[in-house]
Amino acid sequence: MNQMEKILDYFGETKDFIDAKLKQYMTNEEPLLKVLQESINYTLYSGGKRIRPLFCFIVGELFDVPREKLFSLACALEMIHTASLIMDDLPHMDDARIRRGKPANHLIYGQDVAALASIGLLTRAYEVVLNDAELPDDKKTQVVRKLAHVVGIDEMVGGQFVDLKFSGESMEYSTLEYIHAHKTASLFVASGTTAAIIGEATDDEIHALKTYAKNLGFAFQILDDLLDSTGKIEEVGKSLKNDKGGFIALYGIEKSKQLLQEYTNKAFEAIKIFGDKNDKLVALGQVLLKRES
Amino acid sequence: MNQMEKILDYFGETKDFIDAKLKQYMTNEEPLLKVLQESINYTLYSGGKRIRPLFCFIVGELFDVPREKLFSLACALEMIHTASLIMDDLPHMDDARIRRGKPANHLIYGQDVAALASIGLLTRAYEVVLNDAELPDDKKTQVVRKLAHVVGIDEMVGGQFVDLKFSGESMEYSTLEYIHAHKTASLFVASGTTAAIIGEATDDEIHALKTYAKNLGFAFQILDDLLDSTGKIEEVGKSLKNDKGGFIALYGIEKSKQLLQEYTNKAFEAIKIFGDKNDKLVALGQVLLKRES
Repeated sequence: MNQMEKILDYFGETKDFIDAKLKQYMTNEEPLLKVLQESINYTLYSGGKRIRPLFCFIVGELFDVPREKLFSLACALEMIHTASLIMDDLPHMDDARIRRGKPANHLIYGQDVAALASIGLLTRAYEVVLNDAELPDDKKTQVVRKLAHVVGIDEMVGGQFVDLKFSGESMEYSTLEYIHAHKTASLFVASGTTAAIIGEATDDEIHALKTYAKNLGFAFQILDDLLDSTGKIEEVGKSLKNDKGGFIALYGIEKSKQLLQEYTNKAFEAIKIFGDKNDKLVALGQVLLKRES
Repeated sequence: MNQMEKILDYFGETKDFIDAKLKQYMTNEEPLLKVLQESINYTLYSGGKRIRPLFCFIVGELFDVPREKLFSLACALEMIHTASLIMDDLPHMDDARIRRGKPANHLIYGQDVAALASIGLLTRAYEVVLNDAELPDDKKTQVVRKLAHVVGIDEMVGGQFVDLKFSGESMEYSTLEYIHAHKTASLFVASGTTAAIIGEATDDEIHALKTYAKNLGFAFQILDDLLDSTGKIEEVGKSLKNDKGGFIALYGIEKSKQLLQEYTNKAFEAIKIFGDKNDKLVALGQVLLKRES
């Protein structure tokens, strides 16, 4: 087995492990809440690649954090990500009907239940970290402060608002950048930086992880726009955007491909400071960007 | 000025103080987010009585907590309460059109913005406590864990779900109790118990505060149902419930009035353990229940 195969094996095992941990953390036995729990499970176990927990664990390894100190955080990141998918798909938001190849949560459970499932997931994310006996109080405080900041109006909520209200073919690049940086890249960035906080990383190391994650997030978004502009729902597994001003609308396909390469290069450049220990970060980037446009 | 007038003066001053603090905590200067911030402000400063922050401060006085240690928590409680009002009023939730005598948030700003305003408020609530330099990390952790628990599926989200799915004339009393305990009483209870955590209260003292708050919450809810059954929108200041199974539908007006008295008595009985120091808690209960049915 070569190095890359070993890493992909590790990714697969980690994904299974996270699925099992999520089942422990995100359950409720109250019979009255059965359907609400089903709605949560429907999207939480719908085949997500668990990229954010993986990033969290990989960063933990860089700083020799015992893995059990990251279980709650890794699951919290996935809960927040899932909550944002359910919320963004709602009819009064992005009005998406297909997610991971299946009908969106609200089409099965209704808008009311989907919205409550989303808030339930968000809230449990903070709870599992705050309840974690493996973490000292100062780390819990720093990590949950960061998570709440990322979810709130300064990041994801703000990014979604600007996407809903200002997306359009005539928007400036700074607006598009605002949307992607806040709506999607921010949680991916936080997946690395929160793990780095637990690992007592230096400011330079945290900065490198931020640069890696932010540029990878942008690269991923361009790839997503490229797929949307050329793909079919069956291939992409989610509703295609009505392209109201993504990278393709602003720059065209060729220039977007060039930007994709530039962001990718910046991401991989940033993690050179970790030397040979960066192999899993490189592999994660490759996995993330391996979908063909 | 007699004792009750002094307390009402204190309540009025505290309300003004909380309004000023909220303006510090819940702002965002990003020009792109101007309308989102307006939506938040629309409901946050729409004449709420600030009952939860008041309860928080009164409990703080019982345990000699310096008031500045409670500023962030008091505002967090009001942010969570406001978030729940905006969310519950949405068309796919309780579909209420009037709140505090004005059109509901979503009728002015749209469902999308209202939903984002609600999540923005919820999230900022955790942030302000976690950012508070007045509180040690162990208290922050305990308090925010409690707040997140109260918001999540085990309490408010679960209560709202059961209200949406199981309310009806044929529901059992246990279901009605579940809804009121989880959807509304839980945050009022937490307003006292989180302040008590900061005040290093004993288990008996916390139990007494829980009993007071839970019974007062139920009494308030019965009063609310009585008002809805007899009131007009102009008097009540919010959309009247289509009575699908509140206390009145289950018990009729006379029995409901009797229950109102019983819950009120239990609430005031519980706080006798604080002796003469309970005068503001008594006054708070009287203010809460002074609306005439």
